[in-house]
Amino acid sequence: MVSSTRLPVGFRAAGVCCGLKPDGAHDLSLLVADQPCAAAAVFTRNHFPGAPVLLGREVIRAKTLQAVVVNSKVSNVGMGAAGLEHARRMARKVATTCGISADHVLVSSTGVILQPLPIGKIEAGIDVCYAQLGDDPLPAAQGMMTTDTYPKVVTVTAGDATITVLAKGAGMLAPDMATMLVYALTDAAVDADDLDRILRNAVDQSLNMLSVDTDTSTSDTCAILATGRVAVDLQTFEKGLKQALIAVAEMLARDAEGATKLLRASVRGAQSQADARTVAKALIDSPLIKTMAYGADPNVGRVLMAIGKCSGCAIDTSAVTIAINGTTVYQHGQREDFDEAAMRQSLSGDPVDIIVQIHTGTFEATAYGCDLTEGYITENAAYYSS
Amino acid sequence: MVSSTRLPVGFRAAGVCCGLKPDGAHDLSLLVADQPCAAAAVFTRNHFPGAPVLLGREVIRAKTLQAVVVNSKVSNVGMGAAGLEHARRMARKVATTCGISADHVLVSSTGVILQPLPIGKIEAGIDVCYAQLGDDPLPAAQGMMTTDTYPKVVTVTAGDATITVLAKGAGMLAPDMATMLVYALTDAAVDADDLDRILRNAVDQSLNMLSVDTDTSTSDTCAILATGRVAVDLQTFEKGLKQALIAVAEMLARDAEGATKLLRASVRGAQSQADARTVAKALIDSPLIKTMAYGADPNVGRVLMAIGKCSGCAIDTSAVTIAINGTTVYQHGQREDFDEAAMRQSLSGDPVDIIVQIHTGTFEATAYGCDLTEGYITENAAYYSS
Repeated sequence: MVSSTRLPVGFRAAGVCCGLKPDGAHDLSLLVADQPCAAAAVFTRNHFPGAPVLLGREVIRAKTLQAVVVNSKVSNVGMGAAGLEHARRMARKVATTCGISADHVLVSSTGVILQPLPIGKIEAGIDVCYAQLGDDPLPAAQGMMTTDTYPKVVTVTAGDATITVLAKGAGMLAPDMATMLVYALTDAAVDADDLDRILRNAVDQSLNMLSVDTDTSTSDTCAILATGRVAVDLQTFEKGLKQALIAVAEMLARDAEGATKLLRASVRGAQSQADARTVAKALIDSPLIKTMAYGADPNVGRVLMAIGKCSGCAIDTSAVTIAINGTTVYQHGQREDFDEAAMRQSLSGDPVDIIVQIHTGTFEATAYGCDLTEGYITENAAYYSS
Repeated sequence: MVSSTRLPVGFRAAGVCCGLKPDGAHDLSLLVADQPCAAAAVFTRNHFPGAPVLLGREVIRAKTLQAVVVNSKVSNVGMGAAGLEHARRMARKVATTCGISADHVLVSSTGVILQPLPIGKIEAGIDVCYAQLGDDPLPAAQGMMTTDTYPKVVTVTAGDATITVLAKGAGMLAPDMATMLVYALTDAAVDADDLDRILRNAVDQSLNMLSVDTDTSTSDTCAILATGRVAVDLQTFEKGLKQALIAVAEMLARDAEGATKLLRASVRGAQSQADARTVAKALIDSPLIKTMAYGADPNVGRVLMAIGKCSGCAIDTSAVTIAINGTTVYQHGQREDFDEAAMRQSLSGDPVDIIVQIHTGTFEATAYGCDLTEGYITENAAYYSS
């Protein structure tokens, strides 16, 4: 179950302003465990991963992490050899300060692409962060924020174990085998290979089914650290982690750039898992469905269009049914009469749930997105300059 | 060469208001040739094609057309058997009125999906249209408009032949093997099989490389009618048609819903045609690049992100070069210094041209898109109701 946010025993966290954000908001975060943890991580599949992702792929091979350091505002992407050296310096500084191995430090940077990292400010900030380490996860979640409007932390229990997830992500958000920045901390006793398998399964059904704008970040990282203090059944643990990551996916969608509501699409009766995922993603990615949700305009034919544009998927067009917030709007090969005023009222709420049955098999998938508003345009027409 | 718009000899056209658009604007168009024409057409691959598309696929098998009738405001999609009968009635009415075969009439409907077609108004309107047939293509281009802000007609000469293209399209526009509504009329002597091959080639490099919002219409149709009066070299004809359809693609992009400028992406040095097309489309479809173009914000790292998210394409990341409006911003694996003020000035113009070299082969492709603005949101949050 989801409970009030707290760090699992064995972890401490801090977030501070080291001078990257001109408004003095938190821009640097540190998560530290009191021992080396079994760990797993997945990263972006973008062809141009940031320097921290390149370093992270090296580090995670040993399946052990003890600390995570994250800066926001500048993503350290596309800066060549200098960028990689800056990422290494962040890890070394955390290692020296915390008295741990640099090989056990995961580094992340998020923000503008193609900008040099102010490494001096970050190194000085790590000292300040270390001095402020405590039990509250919120300052660390704040230090990771870019255009997020609030810090994102979810705590769930899985048997006797606790899983706490810290996350950020508001735009450039269409994970491909990985995700934005998400750190799951747990006291569960799960070895690194099981963690890896469970993390990939859970991410696949949660964060990988999330899209704000179809754009895949160069910095996406999702890592899990387990201290191993609490015995837990693996299925219970997997269920808990998946629940936590779906909660995070919905939180990220709702707080996406400009978004006013969650858009959730469930596709049932697909011939393959791939088809179910493709159609569900097409629904939440369609700008015309996203603007329909924003305007609460009962232009439900757009849902038919978006299912139909998945020309590579097997769909029984004569048997397709479409329901929006519980009201059937299409079945038996034609429009089903519905109360337009009631639909308008229903679409004005949050979330907007679209359930589609395509009648060619038994696979299903759910995708998580948001509406598209003037706010997305305003934020992204001047993100670099603001 | 592109010249002032006119109909080729042998064609007449008209556009009228038959009562579908409440503001009295043209909503019904008729194009008629004085003889049966060699013809070819391509249609949407959306799983839920409109009734006119289903009928059009039947009709085009005979490779002969003599008239095209188009209504706007209601698309006649998803209405079951009644929809198909309405499309047939439109063809029969044109045939009776013009004294031609109903098998030589191409029908199109464009507008809201899942709404019954007001067939009585359309049948009455066809009589009015017939009485107004003339040499000016503009009223017919107006009758096809939905959210287009101006009628779209292009005339080119190919040797001694003339090709005139009438087009509409402003949103739900990401053609898949076909396109929006586009009718090419020519006096050239080209047989139907050559027309079909040439049309598919030209569409593939023009309209199929156009995307406003990644949403594929259920009504997309592109047809060509040739009277055969003027002898023409086939290569010259194909070059002319391609030139006309690229001009149309750029016109549709510039007049897309809310758009203020054309966004053009050319990818060179790809390992395959498919890779070149995928990367070019990723660039013009990226909401973050589209908003960058709108805001003239020199956040050029987004171009690197969008190339990189094509994780299935072969890309030599160390050799990639990116130029925006002629200025190189990335090469040798890192950011290239550029004058930000000059870039901001350049991005504020129209078009924004992105040229990318990915250095894994010799294939290239160009895609056509537009910026993303508050106008797109405003139009689509209330399209159904307005």
